Parts: sequence; C-alpha cells; structure tokens
Amino acid sequence: MKPDTPFIPTIRATADGAVEIIDQTALPHACRIVRLACLEDAEQAIRGMQVRGAPLIGVTAAYGVALALARRDDDRTLDAAVAALAATRPTAVNLGWALARMRARLAALPAGARAAAAWHEAAAIADEDAEQCRRIGEHGLALLRPLAASRGRLDVMTHCNAGRLATVDFGTALAPIYAAFDAGIETHVWVSETRPRNQGLLTAWELQQRGVPHTLIADNAAGLLLAQGRADAVIVGADRIAANGDVANKVGTYLKALAARAAGVPFYVAAPRSTIDFSCPEGDAIPIEERHGDELRVVQGVNAAGRPDAVRAIAADKAVANPAFDVTPGRLIDAIITERGACPATADGLRALYPETHDA
Amino acid sequence: MKPDTPFIPTIRATADGAVEIIDQTALPHACRIVRLACLEDAEQAIRGMQVRGAPLIGVTAAYGVALALARRDDDRTLDAAVAALAATRPTAVNLGWALARMRARLAALPAGARAAAAWHEAAAIADEDAEQCRRIGEHGLALLRPLAASRGRLDVMTHCNAGRLATVDFGTALAPIYAAFDAGIETHVWVSETRPRNQGLLTAWELQQRGVPHTLIADNAAGLLLAQGRADAVIVGADRIAANGDVANKVGTYLKALAARAAGVPFYVAAPRSTIDFSCPEGDAIPIEERHGDELRVVQGVNAAGRPDAVRAIAADKAVANPAFDVTPGRLIDAIITERGACPATADGLRALYPETHDA
Repeated sequence: MKPDTPFIPTIRATADGAVEIIDQTALPHACRIVRLACLEDAEQAIRGMQVRGAPLIGVTAAYGVALALARRDDDRTLDAAVAALAATRPTAVNLGWALARMRARLAALPAGARAAAAWHEAAAIADEDAEQCRRIGEHGLALLRPLAASRGRLDVMTHCNAGRLATVDFGTALAPIYAAFDAGIETHVWVSETRPRNQGLLTAWELQQRGVPHTLIADNAAGLLLAQGRADAVIVGADRIAANGDVANKVGTYLKALAARAAGVPFYVAAPRSTIDFSCPEGDAIPIEERHGDELRVVQGVNAAGRPDAVRAIAADKAVANPAFDVTPGRLIDAIITERGACPATADGLRALYPETHDA
Repeated sequence: MKPDTPFIPTIRATADGAVEIIDQTALPHACRIVRLACLEDAEQAIRGMQVRGAPLIGVTAAYGVALALARRDDDRTLDAAVAALAATRPTAVNLGWALARMRARLAALPAGARAAAAWHEAAAIADEDAEQCRRIGEHGLALLRPLAASRGRLDVMTHCNAGRLATVDFGTALAPIYAAFDAGIETHVWVSETRPRNQGLLTAWELQQRGVPHTLIADNAAGLLLAQGRADAVIVGADRIAANGDVANKVGTYLKALAARAAGVPFYVAAPRSTIDFSCPEGDAIPIEERHGDELRVVQGVNAAGRPDAVRAIAADKAVANPAFDVTPGRLIDAIITERGACPATADGLRALYPETHDA
C-alpha cells in the first residue's frame, strides 16, 4: 500500500477491548465507523450486512467470540457465542470456518484463560486473511503484467465488490489491480453497477480511496465494452468454487464470462483456498440463494433530461425472481488465482495447487 | 386483443382536435394522460420522452405536424414544424421517416387544404404501425407455437420495452407474446429490469394491463435463468438492423444473445421494415449513442433486511460510461421477425424478404 494513501481499516480491534468496523450499508454515501462492544453488536453487524464479503464476515465472527468471552469466560458463553454467530448468515463460507477454528483453539484452554487467547486468535485470522489477499495480488499481477506490457496500460473489468471491503485488506479480485497500480502500471477499472444491490458502488468507493482511476457502468454495458476491446482482462471473486473449477459468484458474473470469451479477453477468478469446496463436484451442485424481491421493487427514476428524479415504487405484489448468484463453467475461466498461484479452472488444476487435499 | 381487457391507447386524436398520450415518464407509478394541443406540446412530449420507442415517436411527430397546421395552414408553418420536430430526437429512426412522409403528402396540396389531410395522414401512419405490429405478432407466433407445444407452456424472456408502449399497439417484441397469450397458450414472460433507465418496468406495466403473467428480474439474472432452461425463447426489438443482419438494440441485448446461444435457446429480433437500414453494411458501422452519466449516478439502497432504504447519491464527479445500445451479431440471432415474416439474420435473408430494396 502506498503510505500516503488515506486508509480506513474494514475491521480493527481498539485499545479498550472493542472492535471498530466500517458500516458498509452507509457507503458510498457516508463512511461511518461503528463500534462493536459485545456479542450482540457483532451478530447485528453481520446479519445487517454492515460487514459483508465471506472473509470479512469470518473475521468479524471471530472477534464476536472474543467480545463474548471478554464479558464472561466460561464454556457456556463460548458455545452460545458460536451458535449465535453461526446463525447470522448461514451461507457465508468463511463464517463456519472461522467459528470452527475459534472453538478448536479455545476449547482446549481452561475457562478464564480463553478471553485473551480469543483476541489473539481473531487477530491471527485477520492477519492471515490480509496476507492471503496480498499473495493473490502478487500472483494476479504476474498475469496482468504481459497484458499491460503489450498496450502500455491496463484496463480491467470487475463485477460486484471483491475488494478490500470484502476482506481485511487488498481484496481478492481487486488485489491484482491494486498490485498493478502500486507497481506503477497505468491502470483503469470498469466497475459494474451490480444490480440489484449495487455493490459496484462499494468497489468505486474503495478504488477512489486509493486513487485508482475507474469508470462506473451499467451491468448491461459489459458486453459492448468487451466487444469493443476496451478491457484487457476481467477479474472477479468467488463465493464457491467447485472441485471441477466451476465458480459460483455474484449474479451477472456468467454473462461477463461469456462476453469475455467471445471477445478473446482473459477471464480470471481470484479467491483464497477457503472458497474452494472440494466436496462439491461441479457448478450444478452449488445451491443458488434466492433473495428478497424487494431488492428490485424500488428503483430510481430519471426525468426528461436524464437526471435523477423521484423514487418510483412498483406495486408490492409484482412477482420478482432474484437469484443472488450464478455459475460460470470452468471452461470460460482462463485461470483461478489463489494465494498459492494461478491454475487452470479444472479438477487437475485445483488439485495440483492443493495436493494435500483429498476429496470428501 | 381480448375485448374485456382494459386498454388505454398510447396515442389518440381527440374529437376536439387535440392528441392524447400516456406520459411514459410517470409509469409505472402513475398512468397519466397528457393532452397535446399544439406543436410545442408534441415537441416536448418527444424530447422529454413522455413518448418513446421509434414507431410511437414517428406517429407523435406526424400528429405534431397536424397540430401545427391546425393553427396556421401555410408553407412556412409546415417547414417550421418539420424542422422543429426533426430536432427533438435526432437518432430515432422513425422520426425522420414519418416527417418525410408527411411533407411529401402535404407539400403537393395547396395551403388551406393541408390541415385536414395532415390529420388523415397521421392517423394512417398510426393505423399502419398497428397493422405491422399485428403481423409481426402473427409471424412470431408461428415460431413460438412449436416451442409451446413441446412443453405445454411458453416462457419467453425479453429486454427493455418493445411493446405496445413503444408503438401504437401490440408492440414489436411483445406482439408474438400477446398473440400467444391470446391464442390460449399458457404464457409467462421474464422481464429484464433494463438498467440504467429501467424500461423493463414499462414492459411489466403493460403486461399487467393485459393480464399476461410475468416476473421481473435483474439484468444480471438472465444468464442463470437461460442456463437453467427456464426460458423457451428470447425476443427483443431493435433500434437499427444492418444490411448483414447485425442488430443494434438496448444495451444488454448482446449479453442475452450470448447466454441464449450458450443454452441452445432461440433468440429472435422483432422489428418492422423501417428499422432495417440497408445502407448500413454491418453492426460495427452503427453509431452507439452515449447518454448522460446521471442515469447511473443515483441508485436506491436496501437496508439490512433487503428492503428499500434511502436513496444514495454518488458524488457527481464520478466517471460514468453509459452507452445506450449494443450490437448483437447476426450469427447469434435465430430469426428476424418483420411484418412480412421471419428470415435468417443475414444479408440474403433480409434481401429475400424485401427484394424490392436496392442497396444505397
């Protein structure tokens, strides 16, 4: 990171035993810091999506356990905290992982000795997340350098927010972009709005914080821009990677992968090991979350001049289908970038990166 | 049309010499009828997008000429009216066509005899538009029947609004859907939101008026639904069709065409002859309109529960790219449906339908 860039951590422990987060529901309109002082605060922050992104959710849950034990350091508190936090967002892949790790570390210790260890372990999870993302950035940069060298600059398209805001630092999809920018490559990012929840605005916000040039586009514009040769690569994150290299990610990812392939533009998926589900054979086996239709039921209007107008409500009884994810087949993915390096989006490719992993 | 279906015309001449339109900038929140009493009213209705869709713009312009001549029936008024209306939306393909037709019809008549003829000619243009769309519906239905027969029902995906609201009646892309519904086929429509201007809400509104079952989706969801086999066909309209069968249409159309082809789902374009530009050799030669970035600068928020929240503003200096159209290559289009029938999206296919047409 450039030392002169303003930097607000997505999550940090305070000197007086609390945790501070950026309230992501207020972004990009306002950057509000929220203090989590107890277990219930941490639960609410996750459930209410003040923190979002699988890695950051995991870290917040770990700190939630520490906050609970700081109040009362006994078996019952540990069990209750893990159960309460696990129930906040059942589909977030890193949540269960982080809670299992906290419990394994703390259950072996005597009551009374856990509170301090919990803070330490949560901080370790946070540090490891940042380090994994930093490495994803390095490995991704190795793929981007030749593209930038051929044109003297780099235009990258992304989708949703798989950036610093979804992690402790660097991000997954955005880590290679930050690495390219920091390496002095002239870098520009096409930021897709990401309807219906507009997480592209989070990406635009964090790129602006770092001074990385970027342009907001409607999701619909991705095909035209790729066909026009205006992007050198597409990089996205992942919510789950199946054992065969198929990738579930924010809905709309698949359309960008199709358009990238049609235009001969490389399409990369960046994610840490914890996102790979070796027990899931292929994309068709990944459950697709259906979210509330109200996410589409209110949209803004524009007036005659194309300027923002009054908010228009659609009748509340309008039928809406709102799948939150789609599946991009591995054949459309040029590489999966993890903390260990880049590999083909195939069973062999993933297994070669993680030879110690055996199928469930 | 089912006689028991409520029906508000998109445009109609009144008994007292005015014109009434539906104000489409107020839809779907409110269905407001606006009275156009003079040339300036017609200009403002087109410029302000109270009427939209190339065919309806052409009809409104024709009535605008009639309104001008009703005030003062001389050469100067005719010339001024045509010039003023032509300047309202320079890229709308039917606008220039309708104005040229009005001038050709009226210029041959003596001053004083034109006002009545202008009303007659505008009404004729309106009637012909409705008849062309009706025929598009019939020809499209012939393509949809076998799809419906194989499944016992019909699920069609569309994009933007190429329905009754974009025309005098029936629509272009929606005409085959209405025809299927009226023929008693169990029909359901996937309606794509169509960011950034959300014309999908117009489609949802007019389908609801006619009682056609439909479901609103984010543009991003189209790929997943097609991959899941949940649509039997995709039908869209067109803003311009090049001589080789490439189609410019609302941005996002190309992504749906890619996803339809990948899923083996037929992709149809429905448009009248006036949309085919035989002087334009291929899609790359079609200019793509870049619209104001404010269309993306204000979006709605959702709160923690996924419910609509406060409107969030992005900083006004945020860079936005906002192309209004994209180009779908003819190779991704299974048929172009016009008032004369369906043809392959190729130079030969189009020429066979319009043998009287010679290249410019």
